[in-house]
Amino acid sequence: MSEQRINQSWRLARRPVGPLREGDLSWHEEPVGELADGQVLTRVVYLSIDPTNRIWMSDMPQYMEPVQIGDVMRGMAVGVVEESKNPLFQAGDLVNGVLGWQRYAVSDGSDLTKLPPVPVPFESFMTVLNHIGATAYFGLLEIGKPKAGETVVVSAAAGAVGSLVGQIAKIQGCRVVGIAGSEDKCRWITDELGFDAAIDYKREDVPTALDQHCPDGIDVYFDNVGGAILDAVLPRLNLFARVPLCGLISVYNATEPVPGPYNYGSILMKRARVEGFIVLDYIPRLDEAFEKLGAWMAAGKLRYRLDLFEGLERAPAAIEHMFAGGNIGKLAVKVSDEPQR
Amino acid sequence: MSEQRINQSWRLARRPVGPLREGDLSWHEEPVGELADGQVLTRVVYLSIDPTNRIWMSDMPQYMEPVQIGDVMRGMAVGVVEESKNPLFQAGDLVNGVLGWQRYAVSDGSDLTKLPPVPVPFESFMTVLNHIGATAYFGLLEIGKPKAGETVVVSAAAGAVGSLVGQIAKIQGCRVVGIAGSEDKCRWITDELGFDAAIDYKREDVPTALDQHCPDGIDVYFDNVGGAILDAVLPRLNLFARVPLCGLISVYNATEPVPGPYNYGSILMKRARVEGFIVLDYIPRLDEAFEKLGAWMAAGKLRYRLDLFEGLERAPAAIEHMFAGGNIGKLAVKVSDEPQR
Repeated sequence: MSEQRINQSWRLARRPVGPLREGDLSWHEEPVGELADGQVLTRVVYLSIDPTNRIWMSDMPQYMEPVQIGDVMRGMAVGVVEESKNPLFQAGDLVNGVLGWQRYAVSDGSDLTKLPPVPVPFESFMTVLNHIGATAYFGLLEIGKPKAGETVVVSAAAGAVGSLVGQIAKIQGCRVVGIAGSEDKCRWITDELGFDAAIDYKREDVPTALDQHCPDGIDVYFDNVGGAILDAVLPRLNLFARVPLCGLISVYNATEPVPGPYNYGSILMKRARVEGFIVLDYIPRLDEAFEKLGAWMAAGKLRYRLDLFEGLERAPAAIEHMFAGGNIGKLAVKVSDEPQR
Repeated sequence: MSEQRINQSWRLARRPVGPLREGDLSWHEEPVGELADGQVLTRVVYLSIDPTNRIWMSDMPQYMEPVQIGDVMRGMAVGVVEESKNPLFQAGDLVNGVLGWQRYAVSDGSDLTKLPPVPVPFESFMTVLNHIGATAYFGLLEIGKPKAGETVVVSAAAGAVGSLVGQIAKIQGCRVVGIAGSEDKCRWITDELGFDAAIDYKREDVPTALDQHCPDGIDVYFDNVGGAILDAVLPRLNLFARVPLCGLISVYNATEPVPGPYNYGSILMKRARVEGFIVLDYIPRLDEAFEKLGAWMAAGKLRYRLDLFEGLERAPAAIEHMFAGGNIGKLAVKVSDEPQR
């Protein structure tokens, strides 16, 4: 027996030009059909709101196919299986996957990963033990290769990934300087997360502040933003510095070509390495990351904050909030109630 | 006894603004003094003219101290010891070093390297078995890490370094596409050096030509130039492509800040690695490079061309020639006659 469920979804109606506007996404409600053999029905609990959502809405060159016009908007999420005609899943299973901007996701299960039965709050599967934590873990450790005593700078430092990057760098014994866009954000990363210093790029002169807080130069710059902050960092890199390139949020809303860093030549002069990465490339090694991240959480060394929008209908507002620099910690939409565990 | 020698030199009179102009360098003639104990007097034979000379004339951020106003212009050279009060050297020794833009160099010998007694033409110590060959060797193999069957693109492909890079990539079994600035250059690298294809960036649309000659995308881009050519390459990189950043000659004469590549985002999307390097970092491993390069030369797999300006007084003209894209192969100034061997 399957009760009649009404799915709600946001579909891409047209490609945004500049910031997301009303009408770029369209709201749909329709009954969920009967499951076919092999299918799984998942109820979305937390929908992850990430800068990459904006990439997927566009047709800029990117690392996956863009979302097609008319399709449900793509998004990472955690949820609970409500019904299954697939022997690998059963009702009550907690799962992670690209469930999309919708209340119910139906799939053949190949895109679902069961959450491990570890005694952590459910929300930590949205903030740490997922693509966010793995991005911070592999990006910093595999690409950035920080050594104890080195100086690590991270931009969007109060964001989902940046806040973890800084804490992981502290665990490695580094000096950590975060760049963020408000006093509240700066206070959070220094007072609660243990960063050595924070720079409020909206109120401070970033080059001057970097000189002040990075007296020994910069060995690793974990870049989430690109733009003017990248240009301030480049001349301050030490020899053989590493720049894991995780994101370029400063350009995702651009409507005209955006120049690369004016100080690109520093990459040559400092023999630096700029390397792009996408967490997808580390899927075979996710368990390694989750084991370490889980242990750090359990030891109280890794904290997170979940910045929630209530209700799927507010997902577009959440995107706007993110691009306005509004969120502190992991931004997500609470689509439905957490399952009883 | 030391006969009275007259040194001739070019000294930096002021920092050039834009292209080198008359008056930026000043000509000096003065007697060479008596050698003190421990000193070596070297006669310069071939003075290397490199894009990096222009960096050293400027006060842009760079990898060594800029040349100071009033100092002899810095330059790599090969020469012959004419007189020595240093037990490590004797008259007739052939040496390589940062001898400067002058006819005679006096030093304590710590900056001199004796040329190995291998049966190659003396000029090959200016074209291959020196900083040029080592730059191509380590930059391509250590930073670019080309694999057989991959596509390697090199800019300034008819230049000193680029022409070697392409040939070394061919030796590795790669498909090699060179970008150069004249029909003669393109003909040389394809017909004589064995590149698979050449693109004349002054006559062809580079993006279109890259699409044509790199049907499987680009795995390694050895960048000597930056600028518009870099921007044409970036979107055509394959996943996990490598971009050894050897030079940015397109910006060395700039008088205003130059934007970095508009397609910088491709580094992220393609998970590419852009890595600057300077041959100085490989000094402990030079012997390894020279052994391989020498063997390839002996086997007829590595050819070079020496583009000579006769007479030290023409060194500034040689720099202008290089920045006008005039040279084919290694550009050098013949300061004095080759020694008898």
